[in-house]
Amino acid sequence: MTPSHALGELALLQQIRRRAAGPAQTTVRLGIGDDCALLRPRPGEEIAITTDLSIAGRHFHPDWHPPEAVGHRALARSLSDLAAMGARPLAAFLSLGLPRDLAERKGRRPAWVERFFDGFLALAAQCKTPLAGGDLAESPIAAADVVMAGAVPRGKALLRSGARPGDLLYVTGALGGSAAGLERLRKNTGKTRKAGNQNRAGDALLAPHLWPQPRIPQGLWLQRRQAATAAIDISDGLSTDLDHICCESGVAAEIDQDSIPIFPGASLEQALHGGEDYELLFAARPGVRIPARIAGVAVTRIGRVLKMRTGRPRMALLTRGGRMPLPRRGWEHFA
Amino acid sequence: MTPSHALGELALLQQIRRRAAGPAQTTVRLGIGDDCALLRPRPGEEIAITTDLSIAGRHFHPDWHPPEAVGHRALARSLSDLAAMGARPLAAFLSLGLPRDLAERKGRRPAWVERFFDGFLALAAQCKTPLAGGDLAESPIAAADVVMAGAVPRGKALLRSGARPGDLLYVTGALGGSAAGLERLRKNTGKTRKAGNQNRAGDALLAPHLWPQPRIPQGLWLQRRQAATAAIDISDGLSTDLDHICCESGVAAEIDQDSIPIFPGASLEQALHGGEDYELLFAARPGVRIPARIAGVAVTRIGRVLKMRTGRPRMALLTRGGRMPLPRRGWEHFA
Repeated sequence: MTPSHALGELALLQQIRRRAAGPAQTTVRLGIGDDCALLRPRPGEEIAITTDLSIAGRHFHPDWHPPEAVGHRALARSLSDLAAMGARPLAAFLSLGLPRDLAERKGRRPAWVERFFDGFLALAAQCKTPLAGGDLAESPIAAADVVMAGAVPRGKALLRSGARPGDLLYVTGALGGSAAGLERLRKNTGKTRKAGNQNRAGDALLAPHLWPQPRIPQGLWLQRRQAATAAIDISDGLSTDLDHICCESGVAAEIDQDSIPIFPGASLEQALHGGEDYELLFAARPGVRIPARIAGVAVTRIGRVLKMRTGRPRMALLTRGGRMPLPRRGWEHFA
Repeated sequence: MTPSHALGELALLQQIRRRAAGPAQTTVRLGIGDDCALLRPRPGEEIAITTDLSIAGRHFHPDWHPPEAVGHRALARSLSDLAAMGARPLAAFLSLGLPRDLAERKGRRPAWVERFFDGFLALAAQCKTPLAGGDLAESPIAAADVVMAGAVPRGKALLRSGARPGDLLYVTGALGGSAAGLERLRKNTGKTRKAGNQNRAGDALLAPHLWPQPRIPQGLWLQRRQAATAAIDISDGLSTDLDHICCESGVAAEIDQDSIPIFPGASLEQALHGGEDYELLFAARPGVRIPARIAGVAVTRIGRVLKMRTGRPRMALLTRGGRMPLPRRGWEHFA
């Protein structure tokens, strides 16, 4: 038997506090260690806040997902919401519920929670986002709630509600890669049950699922130029997230099937309805020049915004065979 | 059998969105319905953020706690952290993981989650705190992470770290009531298994545990007058929270046992080490006049801040029998 010992809450908090303390931050006046963190936005900025809950067995599977990827993905979800508003990250907060065995070291191997933090803090460092606080509790199942606070000049945030008929629709990157990766991971798991398998984690086909890249620089680019009339991140799938823009803007939309940038190895179905790609979907006036790449990431025109008309479906797909209604097919909890 | 049906995620979200929309808020520019909420602080304000995770079986027991009290207590914890900083509430965010049966209506009876929101939103309205966003997911166990954003004039927040030797120590309200109430609740549960029992919920001896009152007006009073050198809310128990002030301020402290305001029916032990009272503990210079009541709540002087000295315990209790070391006895997860 491998000797194991649990990291106590205080030891764990001290380790987190030490690791979270990055270079001096002018935006975080007070981080971990008081009743609240204190953030100092620049004059004239609004504060953008988003929270995302990740639950074991729902949003991730301890048997399929390396703990580093669970930490990365939990933070990426929230950073992606900031990107969709065109906000710059100020600070992240993490509330973590953990079963005791995930806080235990087995011999010389780091505990699950330490590897979770490796992934979480690596992405935080990449996005220059300090971890400024949170909460920690023992729990029958693993659950992580990530809160992101960002800042955006007053009145300049990219909203879901500004799309107008005539606007063109764009996406960053490629779609369907996360759903395809999840399917591959699910199938692989039958063969090998090692969640931390390095070959698997490094597999390029799994990258969009395990290591999604929040499009912070692209969101900032659009916000600073006020180039988009509406934006959202693709977390629930293109069809569902386009529907959100249509509903909040009071418009309809059509997508050109052949123009959709499908991730190599993914299906059209996965590109249309698979979630968790964390690319940006945005609308821009037809006269606004959108470059082929923004901050190194491809941008593709995929369709256009239309007027709502009675008797016409809200969303349509233009295929070689003709025009078809595009249903919204996203995940609904408690459905 | 009573017919039951689950509220779908969308129906639940729409109900929450409708109920959360209070009177027009100048601080919340954008609430539920976009990728992030947008908050607009006043010029010269810093943003205070805190998160608190409540997990079924750890922080509350569905068999003992009426769902309204679970909602109230989850929000009260976070509001209390703002109070301890002297911040005014801007907005609350709620990430809620729920087993399916808690989202189900049994015949004409509201679902557990609807009663949870009754309690949460009643306290939010009382504290003029809009619910501006969050997340909702199906989960094997109930878990609620509450995030509070508040605002405080730049550089004026009450911190844990400012206490100096010679300062006097004060608490608001009475201590030990929550621990005494929890014990009563635990004993009662053996007799009646009805979590929603109105008599029990209305029992005055249970009030400090089920319906704690965050001391927002008292925190604001201290902050506006810069009357306190350090402050904390008593969530882990007087001994543990005083230890936090001592550690962060680099000082020692002594408490006069006879001066501790003990909640009627509670023991000295519960007043010293029981948590979840959500009263404020603060230090003030000896020359500063602290009134006997602040915003209607009693304030009691209980001790003083001392220099750290080698060989002397960090915290001491002065009793009729003499001076005794006061150990820190709080709850530690994974211990």
